[in-house]
Order: sequence, then structure tokens, then C-alpha cells
Amino acid sequence: MKDLINGKVFLIGAGPGDPELLTLRALKLLQSADVVVFDRLVSAEIMALIPSKTRRISVGKAASNHSVPQEKINQLLVELAQEGLTVARLKGGDPLIFGRGGEEAECLRQAGIEVGFVPGITAAQGAACSAGLPLTQRGYATGVRYVTGHRAADQPLDLDWSSLADEQTTLVVYMGAANIAVIARQLIAHGMPSDLPVMAIAAATTPRERRITSTLAGIAIATALKAVESPVLFVIGHVVSIYDDLPVGIAPTGLVQEIMRSIEVVHV
Amino acid sequence: MKDLINGKVFLIGAGPGDPELLTLRALKLLQSADVVVFDRLVSAEIMALIPSKTRRISVGKAASNHSVPQEKINQLLVELAQEGLTVARLKGGDPLIFGRGGEEAECLRQAGIEVGFVPGITAAQGAACSAGLPLTQRGYATGVRYVTGHRAADQPLDLDWSSLADEQTTLVVYMGAANIAVIARQLIAHGMPSDLPVMAIAAATTPRERRITSTLAGIAIATALKAVESPVLFVIGHVVSIYDDLPVGIAPTGLVQEIMRSIEVVHV
Repeated sequence: MKDLINGKVFLIGAGPGDPELLTLRALKLLQSADVVVFDRLVSAEIMALIPSKTRRISVGKAASNHSVPQEKINQLLVELAQEGLTVARLKGGDPLIFGRGGEEAECLRQAGIEVGFVPGITAAQGAACSAGLPLTQRGYATGVRYVTGHRAADQPLDLDWSSLADEQTTLVVYMGAANIAVIARQLIAHGMPSDLPVMAIAAATTPRERRITSTLAGIAIATALKAVESPVLFVIGHVVSIYDDLPVGIAPTGLVQEIMRSIEVVHV
Repeated sequence: MKDLINGKVFLIGAGPGDPELLTLRALKLLQSADVVVFDRLVSAEIMALIPSKTRRISVGKAASNHSVPQEKINQLLVELAQEGLTVARLKGGDPLIFGRGGEEAECLRQAGIEVGFVPGITAAQGAACSAGLPLTQRGYATGVRYVTGHRAADQPLDLDWSSLADEQTTLVVYMGAANIAVIARQLIAHGMPSDLPVMAIAAATTPRERRITSTLAGIAIATALKAVESPVLFVIGHVVSIYDDLPVGIAPTGLVQEIMRSIEVVHV
């Protein structure tokens, strides 16, 4: 019977790394899914929350150090659902912000598979809360903007620089480590002050979190001088001047373990 | 003794409304705080997760229909912490995106009070996941931007229109219901196509969620014609054309209640 009834795929945001920043809904689905298909950006601490009996499939870096191509991931999700399985497609951050969740969902719907979405804390929010840095604040920024600084090898970094050069808006660059020198130069060329403060945050909300503060003119060299763990996020704007170096507040509290134990009891 | 040792204030994002979109950390802090200071945007379903013995203070709309002024909220938080209490300052969405969390934190730090931050799913993410609408997608949007369409009564809507008029970026307008006609007109005047798709989402992720799709030229009239419950969010951009009207997937699952029971057992 089972192969005649399609399963369902949930595109789930794993948040920035700290397992306590998972949503209740994400945790529930990770507990109940038949199979979890996960990216390399999902932290080990979060993977540890998946029941040991659950099948896990990594579509991040394989042994050859290459990721699984997007088309193969799409096909895998379709096939798993066609086996009648409930699939948790676990992505770093939020599934609909730079997560290619939209592309996977489109492919699944075309195959007649039902799709559900669970938002996750995106890296900008995790980094902001960890550093105590507002993304918007009266007098500093009337809004916030997320762009990706990464393009496929054959694609140019085709950002609308004059639109991006808006001092009133906090600009957060995801996956920008390789291109930060170009990004900073273009922003300055389009009118952003060269002394605008910038913060680079690596591995936000994990025990490996590191922060580097500099200016738009200095950030490329500042980050190049320090070996920081990927993923790196850049927060560009006046809000960085508010930054107060609070201790990274991710002390293990045992709560997740408590919840896990109790859910297992309830489900048994 | 207690009045000699300051307590701590946690600025906590309650997310968009659905209690299952709380983070594990937010739930833990709501369970253990001495007092919860909350906004009117925090849903009744989330307030129901706070232990009945915990003191709650509303700083949203009072009987007179006026909010508590920001300075009074700041002062209240300082005073509660100076009583040695652990304070959960619960805000709709994320505390550092349009939440005035930065202002409250600044005031608390000046008073020597320790502050912690817990991110929350912001309304744009909740609405996107609920509608199955990506905020970024290759070929549709290289980034996403959040602005607020609200200003204090004596303040002009001083947005950088030419920067905002970027078709490559999904524009999400928070608190824009009163000003959407002006916003749409300005965006068109600054080069955005008048037939650019727009979605208005009211009360995203709650059982009251409603969505209206239109164009930049038509959205002000479309929303005016239908009485929608506040808060309303506008998503402006080509991604809206991907929109697939999936059922709102917020079936009550009992998970939150299960977790609540188990945490109470653990803490007793």
C-alpha cells in the first residue's frame, strides 16, 4: 500500500546553529519524520536531536568535498516522498531565505508532493541577538536588508550597488567571505562612507562564534588577517556602532535534553 | 538581600503568533521568568504558555487604547530588574527587528542591568512559510529587505525611495497598512512597475490569517476593500508570482502542551 500514497516533505529551518534556537515545530517534525535530508550548515548539536533510529541523508559536502547538485537533491526528495515517507528537509537558517527552499518546493509540487514549511531563525537574527546588536534602531537604521555575496562560479556578482548604498538600511551580507573586498569597494564607490562600521560574525550562535569589527574600507583585510570559520556574515551599517561586546550567551542548559527525554516518553 | 542584587532582563522574540514557532530557548525563559512584560502583538496562544503563577505586565494597549510610552517601559524594566527579578520582555516577532529591543537594551545597560537576547521568527518569515512564498529565489529576487511603513504622528515617512525601488529585491513592509497608498505611489514614481505583484498578509500564522494578492497599483484599494485584522504585512516583488495558495498549516498538534507538562515535571 505504502508506495501508492505519497508522503509529505517539510522544508524546515534549523536556525543558525544553537539547538535552543530551533522552533518547537521544527523539533517536533525532526522527532517524527521517517527520514531527515540535511545540509552541511546544520550543526552537529542539532543533528544530535534526531532520534537514532531515523534515517539521515547528507546532501552537503560529500567525501569528495563537492555538494550534491540541486537537481539531485530535488529528485531525492521526490523519490523519498513517493515511497510514502514523511521527509524532514533540514536547512541551515530559514528555508525561504537563501535556502533554495522555493526551488525544492516548486519541484515537489510539480511532482504532486505536498510541501510544508517551518521557518527558522536566520543567521542575521542569530548573530544580532548573540552580539546584542539591533538590526534596526531609530536614528541608526530604518530597515534591514539581506543579500548574498555568493554566486555560482560562472555568474557575476550582479548586485544593484546604487540601491544597496543606503546608509539608512542595515545591510547583511550572507556567504560574502570570498567577495567582501569587491562588495566593500563597490559600496564605497556608490557613496557609502569608507568609515561605516562593519562587523563580521563567524559561526554565529555556536561555541565557535567569533566577531571582527572594522570599517567598510578595512573589513576585507581585517577578516583576511584572521582565520575565521565559515559561514561568515557581514553586518554593514551604523547599528554596528551600538555594538556592545556581551558575552556569547549560549551556555548549555540541558533544556533540550530534558525536552527530548520527555518527548520520547510521550511518544512511547 | 534580594534588592541588592540586580536581576536580568531577557528580550525575547515571541515570533509571529503560532506558539509552535517559539524557539526552545524562548519557551524555557517564559517558564522560568519571575515576571513577563509583554506587547499587544504577542498572541493569546503564546501567553497561555506562561505558568499561571507568573506575574504578567501588559505594556500594549491599555484600557484607554493608548500604549505605554517607551520611556515608561524602559523604566519599568529597570525597576523590575533592580528588584532582583528575572524579567522576560516578550515582543512580537524578533526583538531586534522593529522591536525597539535595542533601545530597551541600551537603557538597561546604562542602569547596569544585564541583558540577554533571544531571536524570534519575524513576521516576514512566518508569512512566507505559511503562504509557501520564498523571500529570495534565483531569477526572482537576489535579496530581501524589511522596512517599516509606520512613523510616529509627527514624523514623515522618510524612506529612501530610489534605493527601495529595486525589482531584484523582495520588499517587505511592516506596519504599513495606514501608508500603503503612499508607499505604492512612491515606488511606482521611482521606477517600480505598477503591475509588480504584491501580497498583503494579515495576522500571519494565526488562525485569523488572511491573504490578499494584487499589484503595486492595486494593493491599496484591494486591502481597503477588505477589513483585515492588524498586523498587516506587505510583500512586494516578483516572488509573489510564485505564490501557491497552500492551506495554512497550523493544525494544533498538542506538542506544546506535551512539552509544557514535561518541563513542569522536570522543574518541580
